[in-house]
This record gives sequence, structure tokens and C-alpha cells, in this order.
Amino acid sequence: MTDLSRRRLLGVGAGAAVVGAVAGVGGAYAAQQGSEGSDGSATVGQADEADVPFRGAHQSGIITPAQDRMHFVALDVVTEDRAAVAEMLKAWTRAAERMTVGAEAAPGGVVGGGPYRAPEDTGEAYDLDASDLTITIGYGPSLFDDRFGLADRRPAALQDLPGFVGDDLDPGRSGGDLCIQACANDPQVAVHAVRNLVRMGFGVVSVRWSQLGFGRTSSTTRDQVTPRNMFGFKDGTNNLKAEDTAALSEHVWVQPADVPGDSAWMAGGSYLVARRIRMHIEIWDRTTLQEQQDIIGRDKGEGAPLGQKAEFDALDFATKGADGKPAIAVDAHVALAHESRLNGIRILRRGYNFTDGSDGLGHLDAGLFFIGFMRDAQKQFVPMQRALAAKDGLNEYIEHTGSAVFACPPGLGPDAHWGQDLFS
Amino acid sequence: MTDLSRRRLLGVGAGAAVVGAVAGVGGAYAAQQGSEGSDGSATVGQADEADVPFRGAHQSGIITPAQDRMHFVALDVVTEDRAAVAEMLKAWTRAAERMTVGAEAAPGGVVGGGPYRAPEDTGEAYDLDASDLTITIGYGPSLFDDRFGLADRRPAALQDLPGFVGDDLDPGRSGGDLCIQACANDPQVAVHAVRNLVRMGFGVVSVRWSQLGFGRTSSTTRDQVTPRNMFGFKDGTNNLKAEDTAALSEHVWVQPADVPGDSAWMAGGSYLVARRIRMHIEIWDRTTLQEQQDIIGRDKGEGAPLGQKAEFDALDFATKGADGKPAIAVDAHVALAHESRLNGIRILRRGYNFTDGSDGLGHLDAGLFFIGFMRDAQKQFVPMQRALAAKDGLNEYIEHTGSAVFACPPGLGPDAHWGQDLFS
Repeated sequence: MTDLSRRRLLGVGAGAAVVGAVAGVGGAYAAQQGSEGSDGSATVGQADEADVPFRGAHQSGIITPAQDRMHFVALDVVTEDRAAVAEMLKAWTRAAERMTVGAEAAPGGVVGGGPYRAPEDTGEAYDLDASDLTITIGYGPSLFDDRFGLADRRPAALQDLPGFVGDDLDPGRSGGDLCIQACANDPQVAVHAVRNLVRMGFGVVSVRWSQLGFGRTSSTTRDQVTPRNMFGFKDGTNNLKAEDTAALSEHVWVQPADVPGDSAWMAGGSYLVARRIRMHIEIWDRTTLQEQQDIIGRDKGEGAPLGQKAEFDALDFATKGADGKPAIAVDAHVALAHESRLNGIRILRRGYNFTDGSDGLGHLDAGLFFIGFMRDAQKQFVPMQRALAAKDGLNEYIEHTGSAVFACPPGLGPDAHWGQDLFS
Repeated sequence: MTDLSRRRLLGVGAGAAVVGAVAGVGGAYAAQQGSEGSDGSATVGQADEADVPFRGAHQSGIITPAQDRMHFVALDVVTEDRAAVAEMLKAWTRAAERMTVGAEAAPGGVVGGGPYRAPEDTGEAYDLDASDLTITIGYGPSLFDDRFGLADRRPAALQDLPGFVGDDLDPGRSGGDLCIQACANDPQVAVHAVRNLVRMGFGVVSVRWSQLGFGRTSSTTRDQVTPRNMFGFKDGTNNLKAEDTAALSEHVWVQPADVPGDSAWMAGGSYLVARRIRMHIEIWDRTTLQEQQDIIGRDKGEGAPLGQKAEFDALDFATKGADGKPAIAVDAHVALAHESRLNGIRILRRGYNFTDGSDGLGHLDAGLFFIGFMRDAQKQFVPMQRALAAKDGLNEYIEHTGSAVFACPPGLGPDAHWGQDLFS
């Protein structure tokens, strides 16, 4: 048992939820594990009804209730060997599926490979459970250049983002051929997942940049309390929710009609836009409460739209304040980002706060690692960000220092693996 | 209630532990808060029996059961005004005491100061509880130069660490006039605490460097499970424990005889040594299990000393392996760091793992933020690190990139504040 200690063994009869979670794992997977009981078929191992299912119509980590911690990594492919990339994605699938149920990255685990081999798992999450781990991958526009023969398979919507007014992007924090978003309620579990996938990709991929996040800034289901960003405001109140399946189809999931012909592999996927937004918190902290609230368009305590009482009250741009002017200014952040001002555009936000040491100038290097999922980044994020970049009063206090867009493929069926549709 | 929402109100009769925790807060503090009930004396507010007491013989955050997350900041004093430094330390005391019971940094809180003032608390922890927050401060050797008339008050043991073989220190991650160690089980609470103290110090101090840590690498009480470091090994098994009061007096707490005359203010304090240790995890991950275990001197799965069976079995350097050689090599990490090889030297370790993005060369910038508390850094850390720097097989896989030492003053009595003894 020593080499399998991360697992919690469960009998088959332990409940429908367990069986459901295990069903997706598939026979090949169970065979890889060996069996813990005298009869492999009677002891399924490694599943927990609390774990987030790895397989399904869509990748987990998108509408999954946002976990508290994130480790995000962007990678560059360093080989020109197309088969090696495809093979790595297949190996990542196996490892990711194992880790999302609390197992080591590979069957040998931490010590099972014997003394004369490097352990197949790096071990720092050996005693920890899955902690709601999700692992979500994405392909950057650059993956579809002429290196791997994928140019014809690039979805039309997968393009580098244009520059925006005020951008101060660091190339070392932008772009990438591939990304992995690992989210969990324990940061060590998220870091362990990324590290082990990166390790398996040695010789094939190299880390371009990575970002650790804490204190999510959006709730993605109605059950989650709205968290606060580093400006101290509730963030994500008006987010799309996992329960709004019609809205998700309209705004988040790529529809078959969006990706005809050779890009059909992307149907059911979603585009991920990442923006590293440095917040000048020292300046913000010196502004008055009223100015902060006017800039955001919500009150700081409750998160209610200005002129309303409660957080989830609808924004009403007609409500006047005591001075006869609109309670929510026309260029308040919530107004500029509101669907009514953006021809109905909405996105699913799933960002995290960060603090990356200090900036060498006496300030904390802190801010928001914005992550948004959407059906078409060009048609959704680009016009939204153009509107915000042009007019948002917040721009005085923030700076976009990193930017990337990735095509996150759809979820995996029982025997499928990442890259299968794209590289076939 | 809106402006006081972080608190959980408790009746006076809610239990001895609560009353005990509140007793340290003192009357002036309660008066600052105002009262929530119709009768202030009947509603004490802000205490929770689970909170870590702020006042006591020693600062909290040293032998306190190690929380899961840490935000550490080193600051430089940017004024020559001695009174301003003393005043800031006094203000920090009030704010720290408030935050460790889940209150905002100052009585006005997030919105209580009214619309025309900057909020007195930055707000990102508004809805979060205290999460076992501890705030520990320390004074660096440079604070005792000729700027503030403190030269005569410097304890003899408070000196910059010497260089060690293999050091590759970044001045931007080393030293500092002051430090704040904030630990909590929620990183947002730890970050919030540091940020608000830094904010209060505007014009007096400036951030020199800061470090975020997760997944503590030591248990400081017998009840805590030993966590793992980024090499995948249990770390801190043999640590000093909070229950070993005699050993703590011998190894951790500065005794009155250590600090005669003008440095007597340091009695009951402890020296904090911080070392940022970058781990070359990619190289480590390619070494065999046996080499990893031989270098550490423990087995990777259980954490047992080589040649023994269980984690807490005593190290026995006489036990031979199957090959007739000592099971624990003479230069194994656990051997070099063991008290029996160091004339009885022991320290209290309280470190955290870190991952700070990537290094620009395709690797994760990950490692261990080592924190050790001890009675005399020159007599404990220096010889220990000299032994490790000279012979430790781990040196092939690690690099010390930051270093600092701070004198953490003793704990505070009921009406005392930080800096009171030092600046008087």
C-alpha cells in the first residue's frame, strides 16, 4: 500500500456518485492501477465522490465551482517532432486523470519504480488528497504555425489578441504554444500537477511563464459566495453561472457551426483569455471610498450596484443619486463591462488574485490574474476590452502586464485522450 | 453591522477560552471598537476561541502550530525620523491585534470612515475570518546603525550572516531593516495583513522584498502531520516541538543572560533566519530514488531514517545496510544537520514551499523558503549551515538565493506595544 497511499479505496457499492465518477475512468485505467483487493473488479480504487470528474462533454476547470488556488503555466514546444507532441498529450491525459482522483502521476508513483529509477511522481502531494483538482489544457495560436502541420486545423477565432490602449505587456509573461490551468483547494496539489506534467514533457516543452493565484475572484455557481479582488471589492457578482446552460451555450461553448471543416475538433471547447493585471494598490488605497465606489459602480461593503441595496439587485442605469446624476456613472467599470452596453456580450470569468513579491520600487507586485472563458475571443473579449481600455476609470490604477489566448478543446469521452482529434 | 462584518460577535459568557483571548485585548481596544450591543460591556466582539492569541510571553507565529500559508515581507526604513518609526510600530501593534481576531486593520474598517476618506482597511479580507492569522515582527541588524540612535541597543548576536560556500545571494531578496511574517490558513488573509501594515507605514518604510509561501515544511507541534518539501520528502520530522518547553528555552528563546544591559529588551525573543533556497527540481526529478534517499538519509515514502522502519524512529548512524556500509551515509543531509554532529545545536524550523513563476530558462522557479527560529543565529545557524554548505549532497540541487536575519522581540503584555522597549 505504501506506493499507493494517496488513494482512498472504495468498494463498488459505496454510492452512485462514486460509481459515476469511476465510470469515466475506463477499463484501461483500472488495469494500469493493478488491483488492491484480491479481486480487482471488486475494488475500484482511487475515486472519491467529492473529486471533480475528469471526463465529460467539456473540460473540467471551466464551469467547475472555482477552487481557491491556481497554478497556471504557459509552455513552448521545443521539438519539431509532431509525434512527440501528440505522444506527450496522450501521456498528460493519463497523468491528469490519475492526479484528479488523488493518485500519483504514473503507476510507479513515488517509490514503486524501485531504487534504480527516478520516481515517476515527484512526491510533494503524496499524502494529500485530490483537493478538487482540475487540469485544463489549451492550445495557443502559435501551435498552429508551420512546425506541426496544423495550420489548416486552426479555428478562425484562434488569433493573437490585438494590442489595447495602455497595454504594457511583458513578452516573458505572454503567449505560449500550450497552457495548463491547474486549480485545487490546496496550492501544493495544483503546483504538483503542473510540475509533473511539465516533467513528463521534458524535451518536448519548456516553461514559458507561470502564475500562482489565490483567492479566486469569481463564483461560477450560485452556491458560491462572491470573493473579493485586491481592490477590496466583490468581483464576479454578475458572472455567468454553471447552471445557466443556455447562456453557456451562447457565450462560452464553441458550437459546431463555429468550427466547420478541419477545425471541427474545437466544437464543445472554449477560448481562454489570460491577462495578468498588475494593480497599483498603494495608489488605490489612498483614494476615497466614494471615488473607489464611483469607479467600480458598486458599493464596497455589500457589493450592491450604486443606487440599489443588495449585491444581486439588477444594475439600473436610470436610477439617479441625490445629486440628480445617474447613481452609476456612464463610465463606471460595471457599466462599461455590462452586456447592455456591449451588444449582449458576456463571458465566464474565473480569475485569481496574485502577489508576486515586490517590484523593486518599494511596492508589492500584486493584482488580478484575469481568466475568461468564451465562445469567441475576437467577438467577445476584444470589444469588451476595447471599451474598458478606452474609458474605464480603473485604468489609472491598473496595468496589463501579460496576455495570452488559448483554445481549450472539448472534454474527453471514456477512451479519448488530449490531442487525439487535433493530431489525427 | 455592515462596517463590522468580519467579526463574529460573542457574548461574554461564551467560554473561558474566549474570555482569555479577549482579556489580552484590553479596555482601550474595546473602546476603540465601539460596542455592537446596546450595552458595550455585554458584547465583547471580535474574539473567537479558535484565534491564535496575539499577546503573551513570546510572539505568536514562532511555536504556533504552523499554518498552511505565509506572506513574508522585508522592509527598509526610508525616514530618519526616529519618532515616526516608533509611532508606526505602535500603530502596527493595534492593527495586528485587530486583524488576528478577524477585524479590519483600523476601527473605520472598509466603509466606516465615510465617503470622503480613503478606507482604513483595504477590504480584500472583509468577508473572511481570522484563519489562525499570526503576525510576527523582527528587526534587522541594519536598524541598529547610526540612523536612529539604536547602536547601543543592538544585541551582540544580531549580526549579518557571513557568506557560505555556494551562496548565490540576490541583494534584492536579502536583508532588510524590519520584517513581518504573516501566517494564516488563507493566503488572502496573510496578504491582507502585510498589505495593510505596509500601507500604514507609508513614508516610513518601503518594501524591500517579499515572499509568498504555501504548504509549510515543518510541523511545530506533535499533533501536526509532517508536510513535504518540493523534493517530495517529509521535512521537519525531527523539528523542535512547542511542547518541549525545556528545549525551547535552550534552543529558541533568548535568555536574560544572553542580553545584558541595553540589549535586555530582547530577552524572551528569538532570532529569525530566512533563506530563500531555490531547488533545481528538474534535475532532482531525474535522479534515482536510491540517490535521492541516500542524499537525504530518509526513505521517500514513509520518511523513516534509512535502516529504520517508521518516520519517528531515532536516527541510528551505526545501523548498517545490506552492503555493510552505514545505512545513513556520513554526509547525508539528516546526518550533517543532526544535533549529535553539531555539538547539540538545534533550531526551530518553520519554512514554506514556494513557486515564483518561471526562471526564463524553461524551468519553474520553485523551492523552500527556509525560516528558522533560534536563540543565537551566530552560534546555531552559522555552524549548521557551514557544515551543510561544505558537505551536503543536496548542494548539487539547491542554491541559496536570498538571506536575512532578524531579531524578533519577545511577546507583548496587556498594554505593551511593539518598539516600546527598544525605542524607550
